[in-house]
Amino acid sequence: MPAESFAAERSSCSFEREAREAVYRAIHTRRDVRSHFIPAAMDDLVLARLLNAAHHAPSVGYMQPWNFIVIRDAARRVGVRDLFLAARGEEASAMAGDRLALYRKLRLEGICESALNLCITCDRTRAKDSPLGRWHNPEMDLYSTVCAVQNFWLAARAEGIGVGWVSIIDSAALKKLLGIPEHVVPIAYLCVGPVSEFAMRPDLETKGWRQRLPLSDLIMSETFGGEGEAPLKALTDGAMANPGSDFVEEGYSFSRISVETM
Amino acid sequence: MPAESFAAERSSCSFEREAREAVYRAIHTRRDVRSHFIPAAMDDLVLARLLNAAHHAPSVGYMQPWNFIVIRDAARRVGVRDLFLAARGEEASAMAGDRLALYRKLRLEGICESALNLCITCDRTRAKDSPLGRWHNPEMDLYSTVCAVQNFWLAARAEGIGVGWVSIIDSAALKKLLGIPEHVVPIAYLCVGPVSEFAMRPDLETKGWRQRLPLSDLIMSETFGGEGEAPLKALTDGAMANPGSDFVEEGYSFSRISVETM
Repeated sequence: MPAESFAAERSSCSFEREAREAVYRAIHTRRDVRSHFIPAAMDDLVLARLLNAAHHAPSVGYMQPWNFIVIRDAARRVGVRDLFLAARGEEASAMAGDRLALYRKLRLEGICESALNLCITCDRTRAKDSPLGRWHNPEMDLYSTVCAVQNFWLAARAEGIGVGWVSIIDSAALKKLLGIPEHVVPIAYLCVGPVSEFAMRPDLETKGWRQRLPLSDLIMSETFGGEGEAPLKALTDGAMANPGSDFVEEGYSFSRISVETM
Repeated sequence: MPAESFAAERSSCSFEREAREAVYRAIHTRRDVRSHFIPAAMDDLVLARLLNAAHHAPSVGYMQPWNFIVIRDAARRVGVRDLFLAARGEEASAMAGDRLALYRKLRLEGICESALNLCITCDRTRAKDSPLGRWHNPEMDLYSTVCAVQNFWLAARAEGIGVGWVSIIDSAALKKLLGIPEHVVPIAYLCVGPVSEFAMRPDLETKGWRQRLPLSDLIMSETFGGEGEAPLKALTDGAMANPGSDFVEEGYSFSRISVETM
């Protein structure tokens, strides 16, 4: 795109329609990937772009509290998977009956199958010289780091790179395995790499673990539980309930319809 | 886009170049907006799309723990701003000298100037019937909600809608004001609405509060503090320091965005 047309777009603030659609497409077709990693290497240039996307997340007081530990070593990854397996066994102990049977069938990580692993951490001391925005809410640095994770995830979707977040793990054991110091919190342990496909729907939906909630049920007006916003709710319900036959994906179709009706 | 070309793209997993570029553009030009809200209404259809984007965030065990409280009432917003002002005064008490002087000059919210406010909350009891992925890391539901915030924020950027996250606030007082029950956590209080422009750089960088850290300093290999990944670091350094010629083909982040905002 020539610089002058870019400048013109900037002045109107909104992206042109195709670019808006691409952003929604990344959001709606992103998946938590466990099953579809393929034995292919990951281009360092792509990884550099993804890390740069993460690094451009918002952060409280601009503290940029994140670090990115790139884990490629096979033996180390086996060690991490062992932590996952132990944790899964512990979590399963809280389940019973059909749920336990279903839980045991779920594929919940791709630690060894993905091209690489990435641990995104939060250094809670990073801005100790210039704190801002954490006096009342010290957890804001953790949240900032999650924003970096989501940036990484969406950029990866656009690049055709799968990402799966492993949350079934003992964080203390993971910290020990990766030599993470006391003042640093591992926020996300990610499996990252090329994939054969992105599933049409979230695995947990397909497998019947849970279904997507109706968005209008989650919208409140003015106060928690407050009724109202009927026009807004009607728009979300209509768009989600009637996505049209020629649309390939549930979420993506919504954005297409909406963009097209503007 | 015709359905057949979309299907063809899906099979290759990666977005076509222009679509990838649009995703990076949203990520790199997103701003934490405080100063540039304009007195214009927000289209409910756009808000519906943004909320749907948020609703398509990843969530641990697919629990979708979020709610969206839409706040339009002017008197309620004045009440929220009063909470911000009190909190800012408290936070300022921890600063001194030049930093305090600079802090006092910073514009840190647009609560009353934006078209509307949105409180995104996390209901910690939502999946009590089917927990998954929170046995070891119960905070995962909070993190899922932050992913929803970031989805909302990036979609908003693409729509030309500004978003500013108010983190300088007493959460207990905010909960009381918005009638948020004990088991629900307010994750993000957002100012949302049309803007006159998106700043070229983050405000806190422009005002000299902090500068962006070199990405290569944040990358580690295998363990925390582990040296290595020299090729990867060279790519991130090269791209950030010398964004001009070689990376134009590779995507938005390393070309124009690097020139203009890094």
